[in-house]
Amino acid sequence: MALSEFYLIRRYFARQAMARSDVVLGVGDDGALLEPLGGEQLVVTTDMLAADVHFRVDARPEGIGHKALAVNLSDLAAMGARPAWVTLSLALPDPDEVWLAAFSRGFLRLAEQFRVQLIGGDMTRGPLTICVQALGFVPRGQAMRRDAARPGDVIFVTGTPGDAGMALALDTGRVTVPEDARAYFRARLDRPTPRVAQGLALRGLANAAIDISDGLIQDLGHILERSGVGACLFLDQLPRSPALAVCGDEPAVLAAQLGGGDDYELCFTITPSQLPRLRRIAVGWDCRCTEIGVIEAAPGLRCQRSDGTFHPLVGGGYDHFA
Amino acid sequence: MALSEFYLIRRYFARQAMARSDVVLGVGDDGALLEPLGGEQLVVTTDMLAADVHFRVDARPEGIGHKALAVNLSDLAAMGARPAWVTLSLALPDPDEVWLAAFSRGFLRLAEQFRVQLIGGDMTRGPLTICVQALGFVPRGQAMRRDAARPGDVIFVTGTPGDAGMALALDTGRVTVPEDARAYFRARLDRPTPRVAQGLALRGLANAAIDISDGLIQDLGHILERSGVGACLFLDQLPRSPALAVCGDEPAVLAAQLGGGDDYELCFTITPSQLPRLRRIAVGWDCRCTEIGVIEAAPGLRCQRSDGTFHPLVGGGYDHFA
Repeated sequence: MALSEFYLIRRYFARQAMARSDVVLGVGDDGALLEPLGGEQLVVTTDMLAADVHFRVDARPEGIGHKALAVNLSDLAAMGARPAWVTLSLALPDPDEVWLAAFSRGFLRLAEQFRVQLIGGDMTRGPLTICVQALGFVPRGQAMRRDAARPGDVIFVTGTPGDAGMALALDTGRVTVPEDARAYFRARLDRPTPRVAQGLALRGLANAAIDISDGLIQDLGHILERSGVGACLFLDQLPRSPALAVCGDEPAVLAAQLGGGDDYELCFTITPSQLPRLRRIAVGWDCRCTEIGVIEAAPGLRCQRSDGTFHPLVGGGYDHFA
Repeated sequence: MALSEFYLIRRYFARQAMARSDVVLGVGDDGALLEPLGGEQLVVTTDMLAADVHFRVDARPEGIGHKALAVNLSDLAAMGARPAWVTLSLALPDPDEVWLAAFSRGFLRLAEQFRVQLIGGDMTRGPLTICVQALGFVPRGQAMRRDAARPGDVIFVTGTPGDAGMALALDTGRVTVPEDARAYFRARLDRPTPRVAQGLALRGLANAAIDISDGLIQDLGHILERSGVGACLFLDQLPRSPALAVCGDEPAVLAAQLGGGDDYELCFTITPSQLPRLRRIAVGWDCRCTEIGVIEAAPGLRCQRSDGTFHPLVGGGYDHFA
């Protein structure tokens, strides 16, 4: 039976249980009609995910749905924005209802968790491609920007960057780890946790912030470039998950920590005088928050060992066209 | 030389000349930071275009760029919204700079024309797929919705629906027309004009509206379904462009007028007492505005000839998965 795109949209995407009071008209018209809260700034972000670039085409669709939304919520988190609305566009080779049911379940479950309403989208035939746009709000002047790092700022990361990169390294077959560690890395890659709560807590506190999608070196590099500063990373302070800690393959671990993408942790900078406030707040977080370096006036990024030696930087994170 | 996605974004998409005062932060951070105008409602719409579904993969990239934005501005027009901001996500098999330069030229030229600022987006490797989101504003309560048609309303269309559909019919080789007409149809298909000015003029005047992307019958059908009404279309009043008028192939013309998609004209309904006001306004438009039918209480769509006979409806417009 040929399935109508209108039927598919109604069946899988227009049935979200949650309805926000600021949505006048959601899925089903030429556009969504929304009531922005007066006095706040709007944050808009979008990410496109292509099969076999961002996810394996045979990956579990529920995980793909989760990740497609998570990476966008992560961008809002990096700006300190409270998520509100999301649109979803899908190109699909075939209207596979089993796939769509699982995909929409993963997507909508995460949406409910963060009180984000799906307000519209599009569906077309084509090679499997997903495009999500997320919208959120931040009080005027409180957004965290990439261009706001200052010399002397302390650099932090949430969580344990490198986990997702290690899952990708395992796929190449050149690295081996214990089976439990493999499952953990795979889960971190497939079901990243957007650090929305941390992003909200950091506004008015952190100076610059970014989420780690292309690798710590590369993403921190965006902050340095936009802020016109440099940094020193303390390599031996990079936090390791228990799985990273038992890997044994030190070069692989370091490569994942510095260059592995897909972690969706936050990297941010903060004025030293704010450290006590940060420590008080971070005690209540469900993830680690680790000091990993310092912003310096001299441009460039240096990676220092605890014995004072410097580590030569190799590789620069993920670039879709490099 | 391998080209960086960051280089490509900076080179082709971060250089828009126009800068709106309501954009605090555009391309280049985790998200755009925007100042919505207080007291207005926000309209958000998105469309995804896949190669060989929405455009031929070998089509002129400038036209593809134009169309990718035009179809989204058309959705805003159908809601009566004033366009403000747009995001653009691109999956590309290769970073072809000649293609990108022409694509971005077509996209940004139309953006300038409507004072729309490109505020962000994404670029990834993948099969050629384009996803655009457009954001605009409408005074509270003045958006035109699909569910607002009332029995007795007069149905209008802008322009001459069927032109784009005829270009698609010509591609099949089963229809032939004079060479000049062919060029005209192709231009209407490849470079649709979003009826933004008409949409703005119609707010507070029209009841329901939709833009014709999947064919008049199907799109008018959405209004009927959402409004819980029916309609009678006056077949012999459907407006024809000079090219449609000289086609000769009457069944092909009628099929394009009723079922051809991709016109991006507006179809709207209006209370009869407002007709004098509409006629005064439409005199200044750069496109035709033609009465083509009437909304009725009885469900269903009837197509009537001027001799009173009814035309059997065949085909239902374009569906991506039918």
